[in-house]
Parts: sequence; C-alpha cells; structure tokens
Amino acid sequence: MAAKTVGSSGADLANIANEAAIIAAKNNRKEIINEDLTQAFEKVAIGPERKSKVMNEQERKLSAYHEAGHAVVGHILPNCDPVHKVTIIPRGRTGGVTWFIPPEDKNYKSLIEFKEELATLFGGRIAEELVFGRERITTGAGHDLRIATDLARTMVMEVGMGKKLRDKAFHDLDGGLMFDKMTQSRPYSEKTAEEIDAEVSDILDEASQCAKDILKLNRKKLDELTEKLLAKETLDGDEVKKILKGTKLPSSAKK
Amino acid sequence: MAAKTVGSSGADLANIANEAAIIAAKNNRKEIINEDLTQAFEKVAIGPERKSKVMNEQERKLSAYHEAGHAVVGHILPNCDPVHKVTIIPRGRTGGVTWFIPPEDKNYKSLIEFKEELATLFGGRIAEELVFGRERITTGAGHDLRIATDLARTMVMEVGMGKKLRDKAFHDLDGGLMFDKMTQSRPYSEKTAEEIDAEVSDILDEASQCAKDILKLNRKKLDELTEKLLAKETLDGDEVKKILKGTKLPSSAKK
Amino acid sequence: MAAKTVGSSGADLANIANEAAIIAAKNNRKEIINEDLTQAFEKVAIGPERKSKVMNEQERKLSAYHEAGHAVVGHILPNCDPVHKVTIIPRGRTGGVTWFIPPEDKNYKSLIEFKEELATLFGGRIAEELVFGRERITTGAGHDLRIATDLARTMVMEVGMGKKLRDKAFHDLDGGLMFDKMTQSRPYSEKTAEEIDAEVSDILDEASQCAKDILKLNRKKLDELTEKLLAKETLDGDEVKKILKGTKLPSSAKK
Amino acid sequence: MAAKTVGSSGADLANIANEAAIIAAKNNRKEIINEDLTQAFEKVAIGPERKSKVMNEQERKLSAYHEAGHAVVGHILPNCDPVHKVTIIPRGRTGGVTWFIPPEDKNYKSLIEFKEELATLFGGRIAEELVFGRERITTGAGHDLRIATDLARTMVMEVGMGKKLRDKAFHDLDGGLMFDKMTQSRPYSEKTAEEIDAEVSDILDEASQCAKDILKLNRKKLDELTEKLLAKETLDGDEVKKILKGTKLPSSAKK
Amino acid sequence: MAAKTVGSSGADLANIANEAAIIAAKNNRKEIINEDLTQAFEKVAIGPERKSKVMNEQERKLSAYHEAGHAVVGHILPNCDPVHKVTIIPRGRTGGVTWFIPPEDKNYKSLIEFKEELATLFGGRIAEELVFGRERITTGAGHDLRIATDLARTMVMEVGMGKKLRDKAFHDLDGGLMFDKMTQSRPYSEKTAEEIDAEVSDILDEASQCAKDILKLNRKKLDELTEKLLAKETLDGDEVKKILKGTKLPSSAKK
Amino acid sequence: MAAKTVGSSGADLANIANEAAIIAAKNNRKEIINEDLTQAFEKVAIGPERKSKVMNEQERKLSAYHEAGHAVVGHILPNCDPVHKVTIIPRGRTGGVTWFIPPEDKNYKSLIEFKEELATLFGGRIAEELVFGRERITTGAGHDLRIATDLARTMVMEVGMGKKLRDKAFHDLDGGLMFDKMTQSRPYSEKTAEEIDAEVSDILDEASQCAKDILKLNRKKLDELTEKLLAKETLDGDEVKKILKGTKLPSSAKK
Repeated sequence: MAAKTVGSSGADLANIANEAAIIAAKNNRKEIINEDLTQAFEKVAIGPERKSKVMNEQERKLSAYHEAGHAVVGHILPNCDPVHKVTIIPRGRTGGVTWFIPPEDKNYKSLIEFKEELATLFGGRIAEELVFGRERITTGAGHDLRIATDLARTMVMEVGMGKKLRDKAFHDLDGGLMFDKMTQSRPYSEKTAEEIDAEVSDILDEASQCAKDILKLNRKKLDELTEKLLAKETLDGDEVKKILKGTKLPSSAKK
Repeated sequence: MAAKTVGSSGADLANIANEAAIIAAKNNRKEIINEDLTQAFEKVAIGPERKSKVMNEQERKLSAYHEAGHAVVGHILPNCDPVHKVTIIPRGRTGGVTWFIPPEDKNYKSLIEFKEELATLFGGRIAEELVFGRERITTGAGHDLRIATDLARTMVMEVGMGKKLRDKAFHDLDGGLMFDKMTQSRPYSEKTAEEIDAEVSDILDEASQCAKDILKLNRKKLDELTEKLLAKETLDGDEVKKILKGTKLPSSAKK
Repeated sequence: MAAKTVGSSGADLANIANEAAIIAAKNNRKEIINEDLTQAFEKVAIGPERKSKVMNEQERKLSAYHEAGHAVVGHILPNCDPVHKVTIIPRGRTGGVTWFIPPEDKNYKSLIEFKEELATLFGGRIAEELVFGRERITTGAGHDLRIATDLARTMVMEVGMGKKLRDKAFHDLDGGLMFDKMTQSRPYSEKTAEEIDAEVSDILDEASQCAKDILKLNRKKLDELTEKLLAKETLDGDEVKKILKGTKLPSSAKK
Repeated sequence: MAAKTVGSSGADLANIANEAAIIAAKNNRKEIINEDLTQAFEKVAIGPERKSKVMNEQERKLSAYHEAGHAVVGHILPNCDPVHKVTIIPRGRTGGVTWFIPPEDKNYKSLIEFKEELATLFGGRIAEELVFGRERITTGAGHDLRIATDLARTMVMEVGMGKKLRDKAFHDLDGGLMFDKMTQSRPYSEKTAEEIDAEVSDILDEASQCAKDILKLNRKKLDELTEKLLAKETLDGDEVKKILKGTKLPSSAKK
Repeated sequence: MAAKTVGSSGADLANIANEAAIIAAKNNRKEIINEDLTQAFEKVAIGPERKSKVMNEQERKLSAYHEAGHAVVGHILPNCDPVHKVTIIPRGRTGGVTWFIPPEDKNYKSLIEFKEELATLFGGRIAEELVFGRERITTGAGHDLRIATDLARTMVMEVGMGKKLRDKAFHDLDGGLMFDKMTQSRPYSEKTAEEIDAEVSDILDEASQCAKDILKLNRKKLDELTEKLLAKETLDGDEVKKILKGTKLPSSAKK
Repeated sequence: MAAKTVGSSGADLANIANEAAIIAAKNNRKEIINEDLTQAFEKVAIGPERKSKVMNEQERKLSAYHEAGHAVVGHILPNCDPVHKVTIIPRGRTGGVTWFIPPEDKNYKSLIEFKEELATLFGGRIAEELVFGRERITTGAGHDLRIATDLARTMVMEVGMGKKLRDKAFHDLDGGLMFDKMTQSRPYSEKTAEEIDAEVSDILDEASQCAKDILKLNRKKLDELTEKLLAKETLDGDEVKKILKGTKLPSSAKK
C-alpha cells in the first residue's frame, strides 16, 4: 500500500497528538519527541502495527515485492515525492506500507504529478503480476486501485485534465444563477458519463503501463530492494535511495 | 451450502461465547471445551440444528449429493481451504453444510483462490444437475449462488481482477481531491455497468464449468462420498480425505 | 385464486390461534378443534367469508370456471401439491379459492415444481378465456398473475433457474469483501435487466401455454367440475379427485 | 367529468354520514333521508356545489357538450354502468359531472368493461373537439384523461389485459421467495417500460377512436341532450334514457 | 416579466390583506381602499417596488422594450387577457412588469388560450433580440421562459394537448385499481419522455415564432409603446390600448 | 482564481461587518474605515491571507502567470467588469486572486457578458498551459472551471441562451397547472440531457478558445504583467490598466 505523510485533517491531528502522548508515557518520557509523533501518525493513518502477527513465507515475499514495486516506480519518476520509508510489518488491514513524504508544502498539483503518482500506486500490483504471474495477484492492491481511480476521476471531473474532456468540470449543480436551487444529483447525461469513464480508463491504463515499463526495465533493482526488505523488514528513505541509485529519471525527460 | 469457519465479527464472537457457555452448562460442565465452541459457532453462523426435522428420502439424497459436490470440488482444487466437516443434518434454513477451514490466517486472497472458491460454491448445484437432471435442481443452491455473485463482483469492482477491466476499481465516489463531496451513488456510466456485468458473468460461467468438469471426471468419488454421508449423516475432514484420496490436483497444475 | 395452506409466519400463527379460539367460543366449545383452525387459517390468509354477499349468475359461473381451471391444472400435473378444497364462496376480496396442501414439509423447491405451480396459477385466467372469450376475462386473475410474476422473478434472479441466465444471482450488493459497503440499489446494468425480463417473460408464457394445453385437452372435465361447484359451492379434495379421475399425468412423463 | 357513485373508503363513508347529518339539520329534519346522503356523497367526492358561480355562456355550452359526450357514449355502449345523473352545475373544481351508477355490486371487472369505461371517459374531450374544433378543447378533460391513463396502466400492469403483454404483472418486487427483501423500485427494464407504454397508448387510442365513432354517428342525439342540459342544468337517468332512446348497442354486438 | 392579476392562494390572500392594511395606515387612512389592495397584491406577488434603484440608461431601454414586447403580443392576440398595466419601475428582482387581467373568472383554459399566453410570454425576449441583437439578450427573460416551459409541459402531460401525444396523461401513478400502491416516481419509459420533450419543444418554438412574426410586423407600434414607457414609466390598460389601436386580430382569425 | 467584489448574501454581510470591526480594533481604531471593509470582504469570500506561507519559486511564478492570464483577458474584452486588484499573496486555499468590480449595480446580464466572463475565467488555466506546457497545468484552475461550468449550464438551462436550445428552460417541475404536484427530479429525457451537455460543452470550448487567442496575441503584455506581479505581489486596477494600455477591444467589435 502506498501512503503519504500529509493530508491529515484537524480531527486527525488531535488524535495523533493523543497517541503521541500515550507513546511517550509508555516510554517513560514526559515530553513527546519526534519519533513519537511519527509512530502516532502511522498508527492513526493506517492502524496499529501487528508485530505479533505471523505472515507465512509466501505472503511475506509477495508483500515485499508489492512494496518494493511502489518504491521503485516512485523513486524513478522525477516528479514523485521522495520515499520516506518502506516496511512489511503488517499494520491495520495491510501487510506493508510504502511512505512518501512531500519535500515542501504545495498549493497545487500538476498534471504530470498526477500521472506519476498514479504510476506509483500501480507499482505494487504490477510487481506482484511480473514476479508471480497474473493468477497469483492478490487483494493487497485493493486500496491502491481505489485511490488511483479516485485520483483519475478528480483529474477528469474536477480539474479539467482529461484528454478530450479538457478544461471542463463535471459536478453536481450548485443551484442556478438567479432562480431556485436545482437538486439534480447528476446534471450531465449518460453519454457524458461514458466519455468520463473512457478518459478515466485511459488515464489508468497509461499509468499502469508506465509502472510495467519501469519495473521490467529495473527488475534487478526490484529484486535487490525486495531482498533487503525481507531481511530488514523496514528500510528508511536513505537506504532505499542507496539501493536504487542511478535509476532516477531526470525531471526534464517527461516534461 | 458451503461455509467457512472464519470471518466472525466482534459481535458474533460474544454471541458464540454465550452460546458455548449455555452448551457447557447443559452438559453439566463448568468450563467451556473446544467442542462447545465449535457447536456454538455453527449455531450462530447458520442457525440451530433441526434433528427432529424429518426430511423425505428424495430431499435427503439430493442434499447429500449437493454437499458432496461442494466437498469433492473443494478437495480436488489445490488452492482451496481443506474440508473441515460435511453434514446433512438440517440447520437453520439449510438442509446441509460443507465446512471449510483455512489452515492459517491470511492477509490477502489471490486471483486463483477466488476462482477455486467460486468453483467450490458451484459444486452443490452442479452435483444436483448431473445426478438428477436440470429440471430437478432446487432452491438449495440459492445461498451459494448469492455468495458466488458477490465474490465475482468483488473481483471485478474492488480488486481489479477482471479480464478486460483489470487493475481498476468501480466504487461510489469518496468525494473529490480539493472541493465538495460528490454524492453520486454510481459514478460510472451504464456502458461501464454492462462491461462489469459481462466480466462477472464470464467469471461465474468459467467457475461453473470448472465444477462440472471436476464432478464429471470424479463421478464415482462423488457417489461414494454421498453414500457415506447418507449412512453417517456427518463426516469429518479426515473421513472426507480418505474417501477422496488420490484426486487432489497438484498446486502447480493450475498456476 | 390459487392458495397454499402453508407459509404462515409466527405473527400469522398467533393470529390464527386467536381466531380459532373465537370460532370455538362461538360454537360453545371450550376446546379448539381441527375444523376451527382450518376456518381460522382461511380467514386470516384471505379474509372473512362473505356468504351474505350475493353474486350475480354471470360472476358465479365465471368464478366457478376460474377455480375449476386452477384445480384441473393442479390435479393433472404430477409435481403439484394435491387439491385440498375448491370453493366459490366469496372471501375477502376474492370470489373463490382453490386450496392446495403440500403432503409434507419441504426444504427445497425444484425447477419442475416451480414450472407446474406457475401453470396452476394460470389455470384460472386461461379457463376464463377458453370458456368466455378474451374480452370477458376479468380482474379476478390479478392476484394469481402477481404471484406468478414474483415466482418467475425468484427463479431467474435468486435461484439461477433461467434458461440463459443460469446459476447466477441478481440481487442488491451486500457490501464488498474487504472494503466499504456499496449501497447501489441495482448493481447490474440495464442490459442485464432486459435479459432478466426476457427470461421471466419466457417462463410465464411457457407456463401459460401449458395451462392452455391441459385445459383444452380436458375441457369436459373442466365443465364437469364447474357444474359440481355451481351446485355445491364447495368441494373437498376427495370430491375433486373423483371427478378428475384418470387425468393425472405420471410424474416421470415430465422429468 | 365522468364519475362513479361507488368506491368510497371507510374514511369517506364517515365523512359522508357527517355531511348528510348537517344537510338534514339545515333542512330542519331530525332524520337523514336518502336525498341527504346523495347530496353528501357528491359533495365529498367532488366538492361543494357552486351555484353562486356564474359561468359565461361559452363555458356553459362547452361544459354541456362535454357532459353530454360522456353520457351519450356511456349510454350507447352495452357494458357500461347506466347514467344516473348529468349536471352542469359547477362543483368543486369541475364545471359539470356525469354520474354513472353500477346496477349491482361486482367482484370483478372484465376486459370489455374496461374498454367501454375508457371510451366513456373520452366522451367529454371528444365532444368538445367535434363541436368546437381542436383549438377550442379545454383543460376540462384533464381529470378524465388522468383516470383513463390510470385504468389503462392497471389493465396492462396489474391484470394482464395488454395485447402483447398478456397475462403478466409488472409491479414492484415484494421480496423474494426465500431470502432478503429486494428493494428495487422498478424491477423490470427500460425496454419493458417501453412495451408497457406502447400497450397503454394503443388502449387509449382505441378507446378515444371508439368515442369519436359513436359521437359522430349520434351527433343529433348529442346536440339534443346538450340543449336539454342547457335548459334544465341537471337531468336524471330516466330523462337521459328518454332522449337517447334507440341508440343503445346490444351487448352481444361487441363480444 | 409577464404576470397575471389572479391565481393567489388562501395564504397569499391573508398576506395581501395585511399588506393593504399597512399601506392604508401609512397613508393615514383607517379603511383599506381598492388602490391599497392593488399595491399590496403587486408587492406580495413580485416583491417591493424599488423606486430608489437607479437603472442605467441601457438597462432602462432594454427593460422598456422587453415589457412593450409582452404588451404588444398580448394585445394583438385575440384570446389573451387584456393588458392591465405596464411598468418599468423595478420591483423585487425584476426590472419591469406587464400585468394582464382576466375579464372574468374562468373554469377552463382552451388550447388556443395556452398558445397565445405562450406567445405573450415570449414577447419580452423576442423584443430584446429584435431590437438589440441576439448577443444583447439578457437574463431578464429567465422567469418568462420558466413559466412558458411549465405551461407547455402541462399542455402535453396533464391535459392531452400535444400534437402526437394527444388525449393522454403522463403523471406519477396513483396506485392501482385493486392492489397495492405503486410508488414509481416516473411510470413511463425514457422513449416516452423523449416524445414528451419533442412535443414541448415544438410548442415552445411555435409560440416563439408567433411572437417574432407579430413583433416584426408591428415594430413601429413596439417602438412607440417603448418610447411612452420610457417617458412615463407606467402605462395603464387604456393608454396601452390607445397606442396599439388597430392591431388587435379578430378572434375568428385563429380559430 | 477570478472573483467578483459583489454578490454577498445577508449572512455574509453580517460576517463581513464583524470581521471589519475586528480589523479596526486590531489597528486601534474605534471606527471601521473603508480599507477594513475591503479586507474583511476578501477574508470572508476566500479565506484569510497566508503571508507567512512560503511558496516555492515555481509555484509563485505559475500563480503569477495564472492571475495575469485572468487580468489580461478580462481587461481586453469590452463587456467585462474592470480589474480591481490582482494579487499572488496566498489566501484560503488559493495561491492568488484577480478581483473584478462591476462599475454599477445591474439587474440583468447579457449573453455577451456571459461569454466574456467565461473567457476571463479560462484566462488562468490557458496562461499556465501557454507558458509551461500542458503537462504542467495545475489544480489551481479547479475553482475557475467549476464556476465556468455552472455559468454555462445557467445560460443553457435557465435563461435560454444556447445555440440550438434557445429560449427554453430546463428545470425541475414546479407542479402542474391544475392538478397534483409532480415530484420528478428531472422531467426531461436523457436525449435532452445530451443536447444540453453538447451546448454547455460548445460554450465552454468557445470561451476557452477566445482566451487562448487573446493571450497568444498579447503574450508580451502577459509576461510584463506577470513580472510586475512577481515583483510587487499585489497590483491595483490602475497599475493593471497602465501596463495593459492599448489592448482593450472597442465594445462594438464583438456586438
């Protein structure tokens, strides 16, 4: 599962602060340190760690390739956020997480950033397929696919980033200019809905193909990263960067 | 009816514990033993046993072939959970149950596991058809078909396991990236709904054909298991394994 | 109207018991006898008898042919429940009832039983049409048609008994395997809805044709039964059997 | 507007009894007489008389032709209920009423009775069109058209009286045979809805044409009845019969 | 904006009486006079006058042509209600109003009256277009178009005044004749909805063309009326009639 | 983001007054001055200024070009409101705002004013695309696209300003003329919905093309304005006018 270390709402922040205080107390510290906050954030965002949980060897290997897939694609693409941490310690309902951290707070997200984030989301599923074959792909990619679909819909429906449906929005009506509020739940036609679906489908297929191309070309790095993950269970950003050295594409290459 | 000995929610567990305590008390025991828990689980999951209920001979035979059908298909396919118990003692609204038990707790479910579980679910209906003819098939398969349809929809709509609709999700919108929550109940178009239906239909037809092939090839084992069931009413996993010895496919055969 | 002497829910049963107690009291009996229960059941299921109600001669004749039509078709088909009673004493909103009683409690219902029950339901309307001509058919068949349509939909949508749509279920989604509940009220496409309609329509047309064939071939028996009904108003199962002697098809004939 | 002197629910009956008591009291009578009940019924069914309301001459003439149209068609067709009263005294929102009274209480309604009731309902609008031309037809037929459409839908959707959609019902699902309640508001497909519309449309067109044929053939009687209505404002059944003597079709003519 | 001096509900009438009492009090009168009621009616129906509001010269001229357009078309067509008053004093959200007053209380509305009322409603928008060009038409016609569309839908869907969809009603089902209430929100098919739209569109286009023909033919009168309106701001019915003398079509011309 | 300094509701006004009082108090003034109101309005309409927020250089440049795009298109088109202020100080969720101020209060909005406002709304996105390339366009245009789509829908659906769908309204039914309220949420057909979508799409494409033509022709002015914005962060209307001198189209040119 690919996740971001940002985007928490006010409610989440209070929750995280409380968790951090508990963690600090458990460690007999009176003050919350940075590490407490990180642990608290991960727990609130995805669920508690389940170290006691024994995964069978096949699942562990699959989970490692899945996370390594996210990490490789995300590292290589020049407009993706840097990898912050990769882990195959189960947490909540997922068997592993690849964390990305934005280097600075941003106001906007560009079309190319959307595309590369999508490819990164597909990295997990595609790695499973490349390594174990289509019949062995798992439900582990369910959350990634859901997020990817939502992103592609947002591109087409909210920010006008479709190929044919460009610079248009497709939302519920806010009510008219001068008269009564219109309450139709979907103002556009079925034909427009079909066009939206076609755009969304194209965007997803293109991103999935991009992930496949990258992982095929970098299969050796993928194996290497997986091996390290199986050995150490958790790798931080620097360790990942070291392993994947020399693969990052220059930013201009895709502009 | 095919059922799993897993998947209970917290509420069910409390329920099961209470039932087990009652069963223990009825047997003048102060402590709950394993057997009490098993009985309690089966009662909560499917309903109370109805031993007093007399089934006519035709229904008993049909029910035995139905359960044997589940058991044979489930046993033969290499990625299915092992058979835990087969019974034709009526319970709740069903005339019999084949219980499967996962050998270990899993995080993920693979495409091949979905496919084989589906074939197992079809084993009951297909056995009825093979033995008694299409016109004598019964409503006894209603619950199995419902579960099978839900599984196939999950494969296509949630975890991207369709043949054409691969690596995509089809769910209600969660709200957009930056703006207001969109509240459309079905964001995709009618044409996409048709494509989803076609995928679901293909998956179900393929699984049903798989069950038919297995049961035709193993008709003698099916008859043998049915006979034993009619004689003993309940068979445990070891008894089933003994009867079906030599039929299990090697796991690699379908990879 | 064709009805079954089964299928009462718990609430109905309490209702029936109370009615039976009232009937016993009215007859100065302290204990409820079997006859009280039968009367109570019929009153609760369809409404009070309306003996005081005068039917004109044309309606009486039409009602007699309608009920005789149910009885003849139901008697002849080998997998139908036996006729328990036929009456043209108005009750509730109906001008007559043909009661069928299952010989034993069943867990399942087979495809052939569905088909023959449907043909029996059509017996009333078809008898009206054969005897009085299409323009004189009445609203008296409304309830029968509604029940028939529900049965055909259940066959196709719930228990996989369609011809093309076989071994599939078409129901609202229960929620997915691992993620959020999906709340779509109709998960399948319009095209699938068309296919379901075509199956339902075929099943109904076939059953209606079956009733027509039987009643044409047995017109003399139909007339005879009607005549007796007009004379005696109510006939029990044995009287019906005596009149229809020699018409029952052997069970194997349709297997 | 065409109306029937039947069909009141329990709530209406209490209402009518109260109105009758008030009318009796207004006339210094302590007992309700038959005439009080009739007046009360008409008031509750359609609204209070508005004698004070002055209609202009054009509207009075149009209203008289409209009601005479209902009366002529209803009188001529052999399976219609007899005309009870025709009036052009405004009542509630209508400028006139033609009352029909069923000669006896009926349990069923036949296909031919539906057809002739529909033709009678169209009698008002068609009379307006024949006499004043299409551009002068009025909203006065709105209620008649609404009732006619409901009747035609009932024929096709509830009692199986369509031409192609025969002996089938099209209603919301009641829930399935054995499993959960299905809550779809319209279980059948769009294509079936089109077929239903086509049947409804045909039935209405045929009934409208029937009314047109009758009124063209009997234009002289229509004029005569209208003239009498304009002179006397209200005509009872016997007066209508006298004027329309010799036009009634024999019942067998349309069987 | 075109408006009628009728159609107030009970609630509105109480509102109007209160407003009239306030106006009388403001003028130091203890009794409400006719003029108070008229002012109160206009305020309740459309909103308070906004004399203080300064309109720029372009908007004043556009508003004058718009209202003159309504008045000219309404005056010329023989079946329209007479013009009661035309004003370009802003009131509520509108920059001007043309009031029509029915000469007598009517029970019905004929097809020709619908058509001419529609043409009158289009008079405002068409005048803007003729005088200032399509690109300068304004939102000032929004309310007129809304009312016109509702009227055309009523013609086709409620009172059977379409060209092809004649003498039929298209409303939500009231429930069936004998059985349960059907709760479908739109009983007819999509194809029927298309046919209704086509009829509505034709009716509106024809009325709009009628307004255009009249205003082109009477451009000089339109200019003259506009000029007077700009000078005096409000014209009563007699002033309008004087200016438009000689343009009224004879009623028979369109029958 | 393009915004107007008008259109506040009553609730907003109270809110603005309170904010202004707070701003005055913060500045140790007892009376609210004009500047306080302006600041309060901007805060309530879009959110608080975020001066502390550091934007990276790329985002600052993109934001400057985006706002300059709005300003250039809005300034050049003759029927647009004058530019009041342009700023790239982040506020609420946006990285910059271009304020337009209507020179006088208007009752109506013309077709040409709609068109030019749309082109202005597209100015931001188009500027991003021209300068940085399609792949670098951002979510910054999301709000502009949403407003543009709503305006185009209003043109077509409420005020009859489509090209083919002219002088018609498409709204939920208000209920019929004489009978019951119809409660259909969308009275028109799917085909009409398609026609509406095609009109909306055409209007948006035309406006977007208009913005592109203007910005290509005036690229030098766009660069100049952006440069000044990057230097000064906020420019008032006079500064903008000075930079864009000589580009404004004469009003007659597009009439």
